[in-house]
Amino acid sequence: MIPFTGSPLDRADHIRADPGRLAAARIDPKALMLVLDGLLPVTGEGSALQWQPLVEGPELVFLGLDGGAPRFAPVPATGDTRPAYEIRPVWELLGLMGTAELALYGGARSIVDWHARHRHCAQCGAPTQIAKGGWQRDCSAAACKAMHFPRTDPVAITLIEHDGDLLLGRSLRFPPRSYSALAGFIEPGESVEEAVAREVFEEVGVRVGQVRYIASQPWPFPSQLMIGTHAVAEARELTIDATEIEDARWFTRAEVAEALSNGAEAQAFLAPPPRAIAWHLLKWWLEQGG
Amino acid sequence: MIPFTGSPLDRADHIRADPGRLAAARIDPKALMLVLDGLLPVTGEGSALQWQPLVEGPELVFLGLDGGAPRFAPVPATGDTRPAYEIRPVWELLGLMGTAELALYGGARSIVDWHARHRHCAQCGAPTQIAKGGWQRDCSAAACKAMHFPRTDPVAITLIEHDGDLLLGRSLRFPPRSYSALAGFIEPGESVEEAVAREVFEEVGVRVGQVRYIASQPWPFPSQLMIGTHAVAEARELTIDATEIEDARWFTRAEVAEALSNGAEAQAFLAPPPRAIAWHLLKWWLEQGG
Repeated sequence: MIPFTGSPLDRADHIRADPGRLAAARIDPKALMLVLDGLLPVTGEGSALQWQPLVEGPELVFLGLDGGAPRFAPVPATGDTRPAYEIRPVWELLGLMGTAELALYGGARSIVDWHARHRHCAQCGAPTQIAKGGWQRDCSAAACKAMHFPRTDPVAITLIEHDGDLLLGRSLRFPPRSYSALAGFIEPGESVEEAVAREVFEEVGVRVGQVRYIASQPWPFPSQLMIGTHAVAEARELTIDATEIEDARWFTRAEVAEALSNGAEAQAFLAPPPRAIAWHLLKWWLEQGG
Repeated sequence: MIPFTGSPLDRADHIRADPGRLAAARIDPKALMLVLDGLLPVTGEGSALQWQPLVEGPELVFLGLDGGAPRFAPVPATGDTRPAYEIRPVWELLGLMGTAELALYGGARSIVDWHARHRHCAQCGAPTQIAKGGWQRDCSAAACKAMHFPRTDPVAITLIEHDGDLLLGRSLRFPPRSYSALAGFIEPGESVEEAVAREVFEEVGVRVGQVRYIASQPWPFPSQLMIGTHAVAEARELTIDATEIEDARWFTRAEVAEALSNGAEAQAFLAPPPRAIAWHLLKWWLEQGG
């Protein structure tokens, strides 16, 4: 299973919009809220996420039901827009978590972070108030009343193939010797396929076609939807845009296989970590055969 | 080609972040800006979009290059968050446009509408300023300085199949006799496949699996990324959530074919219009054969 998918919660959206049911969920004796240190998870014995009875004070997001029991998460004082690679403390904790806990934490982190960074109305600047159990914020200004919804930013991430080899790139911030699939935000006015073609041409100067969808992943730093694809390059010559990436290279099937098998000891290059969809795209590609 | 894809513009992102090149693009004698009536397109002879020399005053978004010539769009005084079905005047104009103009207008509309609705910082409420040629807005408060980016909201839209039949639904706001594919926003913390399964179960009480990606479409009302999929239902029994949809029904292959062929004269049901990705998903499904 791809990391950050597989949450055990039922989102129970019929409760969000019903003030009576939402109030009942909050006083349900089985109701619990996730323990967070700001946006960081708090884990106990066996790396389990910690939960506690609801407290007054913080805004609470209704995450859903776990076997019928309501689950909430508190909105922290401040959010965080640093990219994932800058958030070192969280990686050690995530590395200890199982599938379900990773998905639970990831989904909760995205939504509470959004609240923490959207306490004002983008349209008029007035304070906003939490609504619909945390799946909406409403402007408090009577003349505006704009409604705001959590955001999910689609990103296209792409394996590029030519004549049996795979093109991978590295940005300056990557650990030494690390290479991964090229990726970029999908912009207003373009399809997934158009975004893939544009991003690849911008970054390495290669024209691609035959874009295929492979898999998707919610990525909670802060809230991307990673859309994993495979595309075929028309030619091998690269023109690297040094403002976007540091290097890009063609790797053979054997080199990719060796990198996935040997982890930190790999000779050819260091593959992305298994928490990233890029790792799963490489594994998918190897399984397709030559 | 799926409507709203196929823009002839090169987005030329290397110009956005370079103040010198951006300034040069603005004084390029070939530079033009789209003529908009608020957010509505203005068309002339032969339904062509209208363009004019740049004027001082409105914030301008750099859309890209058309054969090397810079193209901009002006940010209107107010935005629009009404759903597409409420924006009647625009449909008549869009119906007259060709592929390239539809994509150009759609992409421009999404981005200028976002600017018009994001003149304040969601984090602190201070005014924001246009940046990066219109692909960013920056908070003007020295203590905040948050950066804000245009949003694109991914939506999963799904054909559900069981034993050769297709499940389609209608919301209260649909024209009489119209049925289309079920759709819903993909939320933080879920993959495309998980969103499809959740939405379908919420709306019609059916469990689905084998979710396949078919195609995608940028939808500019205001700025969705429609992700078209096909899924297989485990059973036919429906439990319709009346708060989300008015009706849902299984249709035979012959009924779907008849609806697509006969348009407004169709006997079985009225298919979605060809501007919607749902129409193209139905066409794809018929082409797959029985």
